[in-house]
Amino acid sequence: MSILVVGSVALDSVKTPFGKVDNALGGSATYFSIAASYFTKIRLVAVVGDDFPDNHIRLLESHKIDLSGLKKVQGKTFRWKGQYTYDLNQAETLDTQLNVFATFRPDIPVEYRDAKCVFLGNIDPELQLDVLKQVKNPRLVACDTMNFWISGKRPQLKKTLKHVDILLINEAEVRQLAEETNLVKAARRIMSWGPTALVIKRGEYGALFFGKNHIFSAPAYPLEDIADPTGAGDSFAGGFMGYLARAGSTSAVNLRRAIIFGSVMASFNVEDFSLNRLAKLDWPKITRRFQQFKKLTHFETLE
Amino acid sequence: MSILVVGSVALDSVKTPFGKVDNALGGSATYFSIAASYFTKIRLVAVVGDDFPDNHIRLLESHKIDLSGLKKVQGKTFRWKGQYTYDLNQAETLDTQLNVFATFRPDIPVEYRDAKCVFLGNIDPELQLDVLKQVKNPRLVACDTMNFWISGKRPQLKKTLKHVDILLINEAEVRQLAEETNLVKAARRIMSWGPTALVIKRGEYGALFFGKNHIFSAPAYPLEDIADPTGAGDSFAGGFMGYLARAGSTSAVNLRRAIIFGSVMASFNVEDFSLNRLAKLDWPKITRRFQQFKKLTHFETLE
Repeated sequence: MSILVVGSVALDSVKTPFGKVDNALGGSATYFSIAASYFTKIRLVAVVGDDFPDNHIRLLESHKIDLSGLKKVQGKTFRWKGQYTYDLNQAETLDTQLNVFATFRPDIPVEYRDAKCVFLGNIDPELQLDVLKQVKNPRLVACDTMNFWISGKRPQLKKTLKHVDILLINEAEVRQLAEETNLVKAARRIMSWGPTALVIKRGEYGALFFGKNHIFSAPAYPLEDIADPTGAGDSFAGGFMGYLARAGSTSAVNLRRAIIFGSVMASFNVEDFSLNRLAKLDWPKITRRFQQFKKLTHFETLE
Repeated sequence: MSILVVGSVALDSVKTPFGKVDNALGGSATYFSIAASYFTKIRLVAVVGDDFPDNHIRLLESHKIDLSGLKKVQGKTFRWKGQYTYDLNQAETLDTQLNVFATFRPDIPVEYRDAKCVFLGNIDPELQLDVLKQVKNPRLVACDTMNFWISGKRPQLKKTLKHVDILLINEAEVRQLAEETNLVKAARRIMSWGPTALVIKRGEYGALFFGKNHIFSAPAYPLEDIADPTGAGDSFAGGFMGYLARAGSTSAVNLRRAIIFGSVMASFNVEDFSLNRLAKLDWPKITRRFQQFKKLTHFETLE
């Protein structure tokens, strides 16, 4: 199955203790698309300004990403500027310029409307719902969100969640959304609103998956050199959804593998700035790290 | 193999959002001993005051813990008072009264000096080294420490670590001790000082094990009701060392299982205040939760 993804394509300026980039390729839909492109065909719906560099378009095309839903309009591309200190878990936003993204209304191309697999990047929940209204009969809908929408558009977000199968969300945000500190209780509450599964992203601590009848815990890969955590959550989502779309099933076995593939893609992403590492992978590198996750977590049962 | 443990036995007053206890049984060596007692024979070296209740002695005895090294001296037992808010990862100390613990000099009974397996609870590193000088030829030495000793007695701690096989330590403390933010690099640095293995305790995020040739990651058990995190780290150490002593080997297979047993005992401990839950376990309950950890972390490799 191919995946329809809607989200942001941006130009990021990022500084970490390990280096910096200016106006580098970024955005939730970008990280998602490149990560997922190793698993399946991606159809991207987003908007950029007329300043968006051609070489970024060529990079996306080289990953066979279908760009008929990527609109180029007059104005400047969405820009984000942020920095991280040695605690790489928390970005400090220095500047956000929405630019052409401020008036973004996702218009799903007719040939995309039979999409079976949809990922709604972190955008206004009303726009997320609007996307779903345009898609005929999706088999799997996943979405991301953030504190900004949870505090500002809670009713709209809850309305969108009724139509979402899997919510991917940060640990602090799951607590905020559920208004509950305990993660098990928080997950159960959110799942009573619609989603049948929940993926809690915990940065350097990995991910926690809540399904109907099982919980699965995956660590982050212990890396010696982390350059830039920007896009880790979206890369995770790309690996996760990419594997599920490729497998064509959301069995418990596949969901667990998908969490690991999400962790694999996130672990590659943070090794370099922007899409520098993520864009240069291949299937053997990806499966090799998947096996390393097995080594990292495996233990023998008792005799 | 039996385990010789040296550490504190205390009376704790603890308040969490889920209840409180006053002058309840606590202390690092207590949590360790009860947790480890399900795996092997424990010999406890500690000190209490003449106010120490008999029923606590009987509880320890009921777990077949050898108390010939538990000195009762004139004065009051070590008392700790603390509280936790909804963020159960961080205790706030309200009051510490060292009392008889202030002049504690571990005197290892002659019949304990052939101990093959030693756990040095979180006490002054000079006292930890003093214990090791009294033990003839131990096969396995593990120890815990804390920020107080890292900042106040760094040279002495490093001297002690030369004689330690496995250091168990909190995440923030490993960074402080190694003076390095990255955990992989921090682990390597500390292991260059003596220990052949390092267990990083991460509270609700589980534990990370660094051995000579492998890294192992274990989650914490996702619990719906956490009453009181006091003693989780010591319960972890008890399950970890208990299993290694029982298995009589530190093979990679056993080290990984030991980390899981540590996580099992920590997960039980936090379900109730003081030793209330930990003291009422049995082997079937423990192995059942061990299997639940397998379910929590297992994923199928690729075909």
